[in-house]
Amino acid sequence: MTSRSHYHALCQQFKTIYHFEHLQALGDWDQATMMPAGGSQARGEAMAQLALHIHALKTAPSLAEHLAHAADEPLSAAQQANLREMRYQQRQATALPGKLVQAKTQLTYACEHAWRAQRQQNDWQGFKPNLEAVIALVREEAQILGEAQQLAPYDALLNKFEPGTTMAQIDRVFGDLKIWLPSLIQQVQAKQQAWPTKALPHATIAQQKALNLDVMTLLGFDFKQGRLDTSSHPFSGGVPGDVRITTRYDEHDFLTALFSTIHETGHARYEQGLPLEWRGQPAGNARSMAIHESQSLFFEMQMARGTGILPLLQQRINHHLGCQISELELQHWLTRVSPGRIRVDADEVTYPCHIMLRYEVEKGLIEGRLTVADLPEFWDAAMQSLLGLSTQGDYRNGCMQDIHWPVGELGYFPSYSLGAMYAAQFSASMQNQIGSIDALIAAGELTLVTQWLQDNIWSKGALLTTDELVIAATGETLNPAHFKQHLMTRYL
Amino acid sequence: MTSRSHYHALCQQFKTIYHFEHLQALGDWDQATMMPAGGSQARGEAMAQLALHIHALKTAPSLAEHLAHAADEPLSAAQQANLREMRYQQRQATALPGKLVQAKTQLTYACEHAWRAQRQQNDWQGFKPNLEAVIALVREEAQILGEAQQLAPYDALLNKFEPGTTMAQIDRVFGDLKIWLPSLIQQVQAKQQAWPTKALPHATIAQQKALNLDVMTLLGFDFKQGRLDTSSHPFSGGVPGDVRITTRYDEHDFLTALFSTIHETGHARYEQGLPLEWRGQPAGNARSMAIHESQSLFFEMQMARGTGILPLLQQRINHHLGCQISELELQHWLTRVSPGRIRVDADEVTYPCHIMLRYEVEKGLIEGRLTVADLPEFWDAAMQSLLGLSTQGDYRNGCMQDIHWPVGELGYFPSYSLGAMYAAQFSASMQNQIGSIDALIAAGELTLVTQWLQDNIWSKGALLTTDELVIAATGETLNPAHFKQHLMTRYL
Ligand SMILES: [Zn+2]
Ligand SMILES: [Zn+2]
Repeated sequence: MTSRSHYHALCQQFKTIYHFEHLQALGDWDQATMMPAGGSQARGEAMAQLALHIHALKTAPSLAEHLAHAADEPLSAAQQANLREMRYQQRQATALPGKLVQAKTQLTYACEHAWRAQRQQNDWQGFKPNLEAVIALVREEAQILGEAQQLAPYDALLNKFEPGTTMAQIDRVFGDLKIWLPSLIQQVQAKQQAWPTKALPHATIAQQKALNLDVMTLLGFDFKQGRLDTSSHPFSGGVPGDVRITTRYDEHDFLTALFSTIHETGHARYEQGLPLEWRGQPAGNARSMAIHESQSLFFEMQMARGTGILPLLQQRINHHLGCQISELELQHWLTRVSPGRIRVDADEVTYPCHIMLRYEVEKGLIEGRLTVADLPEFWDAAMQSLLGLSTQGDYRNGCMQDIHWPVGELGYFPSYSLGAMYAAQFSASMQNQIGSIDALIAAGELTLVTQWLQDNIWSKGALLTTDELVIAATGETLNPAHFKQHLMTRYL
Repeated sequence: MTSRSHYHALCQQFKTIYHFEHLQALGDWDQATMMPAGGSQARGEAMAQLALHIHALKTAPSLAEHLAHAADEPLSAAQQANLREMRYQQRQATALPGKLVQAKTQLTYACEHAWRAQRQQNDWQGFKPNLEAVIALVREEAQILGEAQQLAPYDALLNKFEPGTTMAQIDRVFGDLKIWLPSLIQQVQAKQQAWPTKALPHATIAQQKALNLDVMTLLGFDFKQGRLDTSSHPFSGGVPGDVRITTRYDEHDFLTALFSTIHETGHARYEQGLPLEWRGQPAGNARSMAIHESQSLFFEMQMARGTGILPLLQQRINHHLGCQISELELQHWLTRVSPGRIRVDADEVTYPCHIMLRYEVEKGLIEGRLTVADLPEFWDAAMQSLLGLSTQGDYRNGCMQDIHWPVGELGYFPSYSLGAMYAAQFSASMQNQIGSIDALIAAGELTLVTQWLQDNIWSKGALLTTDELVIAATGETLNPAHFKQHLMTRYL
């Protein structure tokens, strides 16, 4: 029994950490959906205290000692994977001083809170000093994390969300994209020029909510294990067993809420489908944020903009909104390519441009080539060059549009494009193995599609590394060619 | 500086505890209002872990050491009061083993969760073993707390909610009540026999919600510092700065939701009015649960069923519900005395009977004279004797109706009747000092009424003991004669 005891002790300690992370997830969700403004300060302080406590648990000397000895114990492959994830979390935590973790939580809570109002008022001057403070802290964090892992500072940030990712890899992927994407965008726009434009029907929030709940049910969301709410920025939160997704409503554009809901439903089903027997252990977590986004984008792009699901969506839309949209009209809405200022409203063809811009900004901020003061000008120039749009003076739809920087989450954005690429790769692999998404759904077998994801992705938790997971599911590591092929097939 | 250091260190430690109690309040609120069933187990475990952690913070040796030395430091009267409250909390925590605290949290979370369904299904057989397990733990808790404070076990439970209260005191108060209350109930019923009975108008949930929000605004609820939601059992939760009250809706009885909302608004304004400069410290808390209930009952009974506010309520009801209720009809509804099975729906005259029954049950359960198995029979007999009603076979409206026992909160019920008595005493005192509630509100000076409460009760936090607080506000300690006088004046 002695030989198992270190690993067993680690499982206990990480279970305790999991319980406090549960409270962290709840506090974050509530702050975005329910909390009145007056609660902000006390919540920020409580969350900072909680972050400090979780940090203390992960950096406890006893945990390091058990980790040092557990590797010598006879463990199953799955237990070894759990140990690998434990070690990763412990190293990430140990690298950072607790004071920095606490300070960052409190600072970003305040910055995000202020940003909500500042963004609405297009108040760049008010936001700027707050963002400067956040960026200064994140640069410190990146520096420390990088030194601990012998990584460049920005690589260390990328690794927080997708372990193993490097700027070299992203540069290669985006470098390739930059070669073929601009001409593809032009070709698609030329092809779609003849498409008639028709305004979306007006839809009350109540109608939209009923529609969204219906579509979530169609997509297998388990309402005994989750809920849908409203927030100014859609997200998926909560914990497995209680997954909480949000959307936001625009009475003149029901598709925004519907498709953000479908996106978050993809995240949610991943969480709801994580391996029950590993719940509460690091190996039971989702693999990474790129894989997480691959699941949401699989739902939003691969499934929900395809031809197979089209009649099912059409019928539900017409039913709940009391309108008479044709299949063709809907298809045009769902696949129209049109450069815009807002990332979250972008179509899947122009979306990577938004990511490439943010990636360049983040690298520049972290490596010191760019300051927060430079941001608006840099942003405007990049949007002009990438999508031919000016954002001058329009901060709210320019460099103030995303929640990621106010909350200090630099290094996350590339996960979206990696996710889109993984999603295309999974889709291609599924097609080879059991048939295309469109064909399966048209044949009434939507559950076969999600079962494939359950078997190949969700049930694996973090038991495999990203590369192991993707190879097991598709036979190869990340291959952006599938994404290119997907766009060409669907849009040309 | 050395002389101040122990007290200062204590303030830091209690601030940390306050942050974790913030998360506890959030978890409790969410569990009752938002959480899907699937989240129950993980939440229960996380809350038990949190309770254990708070217990560990309160029982830390360093905290005891600072407490031992702080008394020798030169402290202001307010700081001494804060120290008194710290010491009380520390003693209460230290008496109980952490394992018991954790086990009780987890057990009562599960029991409450199951009870929600069992109550609906009138499933006494399913509920009984769960309640037996909770009562066994609470008996252990009472035993340990009693020994630590040299109190009888049930006195120790009373002290959790109202420090200083004893069975001897409650027995005296209730003994007196039993003498005059039954004949008063009969007299009032005889007087009201001639009142016409008229059904309440049907009201949608949306109409009721708008009405409730309007009345909350009238009563000074600050929506920047709180919110109103729905739960199966109305309560007031959250934290000062973010006070969350709930109600439940019945389309055939809008008064249930309205008056539970008014009740909880009283709790909420107390929390919102606590001294800002003491926020996060024990002296900044509400005084006790009896004083808390005195504020909710002041709002619900003293203010909202009086003649002064009647036209203001009438106008808002007719506006939001689109009906034409007369002042007299409304007054009859608000003051009709009618024995019923459900405590929370009881009028203020028969309400004490419900409390006396529960008080006898709790004493019996804790002192071992009564078992859980005896409950239905005891309940039926007591209801027959007190109010002339049988509850045989109707467990859901009998001994399964309250949330207090599933969650292990024995010792709380007397706070309601003490609160009603304090409310009447405050009302009488206010009348002497600035005029009667009804006269002030009729003169458009509702804010003078709440300002009196702000000055005399809310702003004092826990800086005074209950007796000190009540003497400062009214010139005497608890005097039930005011309650008797109030009922006679209003109902005879
Ligand atoms: Zn996403
Ligand atoms: Zn109350």
